Amino acid sequence: MDLIADLLAGNRRALARAISRVEDRADDARGLLAALHGHTGRAHVIGLTGAPGTGKSTLVSALARAYRATGRTVGVVAVDPTSPFSGGALLGDRVRMRDLAGDPGIFIRSMATRGSLGGLARATADVIAVLDAAGFDRILVETVGVGQAEVDIASAAHTTIVVEAPGLGDEVQAIKAGVLEIADVFAVNKADRADADRTVMALQMMQGLASAGHHGPQPGPGPAQPGPQADGAWLPPIVKTIATEGRGVEALRDWVEQHARYLRDSGQLARREQARAAAALDHILRDRLLADLLARQPAERLPALVAAIAGRALDPYAAADALLADS
Amino acid sequence: MDLIADLLAGNRRALARAISRVEDRADDARGLLAALHGHTGRAHVIGLTGAPGTGKSTLVSALARAYRATGRTVGVVAVDPTSPFSGGALLGDRVRMRDLAGDPGIFIRSMATRGSLGGLARATADVIAVLDAAGFDRILVETVGVGQAEVDIASAAHTTIVVEAPGLGDEVQAIKAGVLEIADVFAVNKADRADADRTVMALQMMQGLASAGHHGPQPGPGPAQPGPQADGAWLPPIVKTIATEGRGVEALRDWVEQHARYLRDSGQLARREQARAAAALDHILRDRLLADLLARQPAERLPALVAAIAGRALDPYAAADALLADS
Repeated sequence: MDLIADLLAGNRRALARAISRVEDRADDARGLLAALHGHTGRAHVIGLTGAPGTGKSTLVSALARAYRATGRTVGVVAVDPTSPFSGGALLGDRVRMRDLAGDPGIFIRSMATRGSLGGLARATADVIAVLDAAGFDRILVETVGVGQAEVDIASAAHTTIVVEAPGLGDEVQAIKAGVLEIADVFAVNKADRADADRTVMALQMMQGLASAGHHGPQPGPGPAQPGPQADGAWLPPIVKTIATEGRGVEALRDWVEQHARYLRDSGQLARREQARAAAALDHILRDRLLADLLARQPAERLPALVAAIAGRALDPYAAADALLADS
Repeated sequence: MDLIADLLAGNRRALARAISRVEDRADDARGLLAALHGHTGRAHVIGLTGAPGTGKSTLVSALARAYRATGRTVGVVAVDPTSPFSGGALLGDRVRMRDLAGDPGIFIRSMATRGSLGGLARATADVIAVLDAAGFDRILVETVGVGQAEVDIASAAHTTIVVEAPGLGDEVQAIKAGVLEIADVFAVNKADRADADRTVMALQMMQGLASAGHHGPQPGPGPAQPGPQADGAWLPPIVKTIATEGRGVEALRDWVEQHARYLRDSGQLARREQARAAAALDHILRDRLLADLLARQPAERLPALVAAIAGRALDPYAAADALLADS
C-alpha cells in the first residue's frame, strides 16, 4: 500500500490521511493498523491531564518546544474538547499553536469530541499507534482531567503528568481522588501566583499520607527525594512551571525523561506495555461483541426490549438475559 | 424479601443496605434491582454537571434545600470524585452538608471513585433506580462536567443543569463543546462576581449561533424567551445563582419543574425514558458479553494474546479476531 509506505517514509500528508482513516473507522483502518503495528513501540507516550484553567494546553505547547530544542520529534494528540488544540483557542493560544504548526518535527491532531468515552479512548490509542509508526519520538496526549475519564485514557500513556494550578477554587478538592494513582510527575503550573506553594505543599502532604500506607517512599529522616526510591518505587516529582514564559518546562521534560529511563531499567516499561495492550483489546472486544450480538437480532427485537424496560415490564438485567439467551 | 419490603416502606437502613449491595454488585443485587424495577419511574432525575471550581456541590445542597422547602423528598448521588459529598469537603462545605444529612427527607450517597467510567455509569443508574423505588421525589446527580464523561452519565437524567461560573480561565473554552447538546438549564453560579454577565452573554451568544442552524428557537424580532418555543423545541434558560447565599436557587428549581412539565406535555419524557433504558441495556450487555467470552477461554489464552500485542507479533484487532473466532 502506498499510504503505508509514504507514512513510514515520513510523508505528512500520508500521515494526516492515515489518521483520518483511523478516526473515521474507514474500511481500510483495520488493515492499516495491522500493517503499522510492527512499526510501533518506539515512541514514548506522555499523557498530560488536568482541569480546565490549569493552563494545560499552554504547557503542552511549551513541553513540545522543549523537546524540539533537544532535536526530538513530537506528536500531539488533544483529547480534551475544551483544549485550544481542539478549536476553541483564544488569539494568544492560537499564535502559540501556530508556532508549533510550522515546524515539520511536530504534528498536532485534535480528536473528535463526539461519541462515547470508550470509543474515544480506543480511537485515541489507534491515533497514537499511527504517530508512533510514523516515527515521532515523543507523543503528548492532552486529556481533560477530573473524574474517571483520564484513567481510561491514561492507560494509553507511559508517563502521566498531572497538571495542577494554584487557586482553582480549592486545591484540596481539585487534587484528591485518584490523582496519586495515575501521576508519574506533577506540574504545578502558573507558579508565579501567590498561592503556588500551598498547592505544592498540598501535593507533598498527600504523598506523605500515601507513604504512611503500603506504597510510596520509605519514611525516614528528612523528606524523601523524588524519583526512584530504595524499595524500587517511583516517587513523583512536583515541578513548578510557568508555561506562558516557558519557565520550569525544561525541568519538566528532564523529569519525564528520567521517568522513561526508570521504566526501562526497572522492568516497569514491559508491564505498562502489557497494560496498554490489554486496554486496547478490552475496548475492541466490547464494541465487537455488542455489534455482533445486535447484528444477529431481528430489527424489532431491541426496540421492543427497550420499550419493555421503559414501561417497567422488564428490568434491564432481565432484558440483557433475554437477548443473550437468544443468541 | 425483608430488605425490599423495608425499603419500600421507607426504612433508611434498608435503603442504605440496598444501595451498598447494588454498588458492590453483590450476589443478590440482580434480584433486588429486578424486584424494585416495577416501583421505579416516579422520580424526576436531575443531573448537575460542571467543572471543579464552579461551586456545583454547594449548588446541589442549595437546590436540595429549595426542594425540601416545597415538601419534596430528595436523593443526592455524587458521582464527581472531587465533590465534597465524596469526602473531600472543606469545613464550610461539611457544615452545609451536615444540615442536609440531618433531614429524613434527604438521602445522600457518594459513588465510589474507582473503576471504569462505563462501570460507574451503570452503577449510578442502578443507585438512581433504588432511590426512585424508595420513593424520593427528586434525585440530584452531581457529575464532573468536562469532556465526554458527563454525556454518558447525563443519559441517566431527565433534566440536565450545566453549571458555569465566571472567571474560570476563559469562559469560551470552558463552555464550548457538547454543552449545548446536553443542557436543559444553565446555572451561572457565583453570579456576584464582576464578570458574571460576560459568562451569561457568552452562553446567549452560543444559543444564538445554534439557532442559526437547524435546531433551537426561531429567529425573530427581539431575543427569544427561554422555555418551550413555538416549534416545540426547548430553549434552555440561563439562571444566575449565588449558591452560598441561596440566591437564584428557587428560580433554578422552578425552571427544572417547568422543564419536567415540558417533558411530560411534549411527549419528550417517554423518549428520554427510552434513551435511559437503552443506555442501561447497552452498559449491561457490554460487560456481560466480555465476561462470558473470557469465561469460555482457557486461563492462559488472554495473557498470551496480550503479550503478543505488546511484543508486536499481533495487532489488537487481530487478537480480538482470534478470540472471537474461538468462541
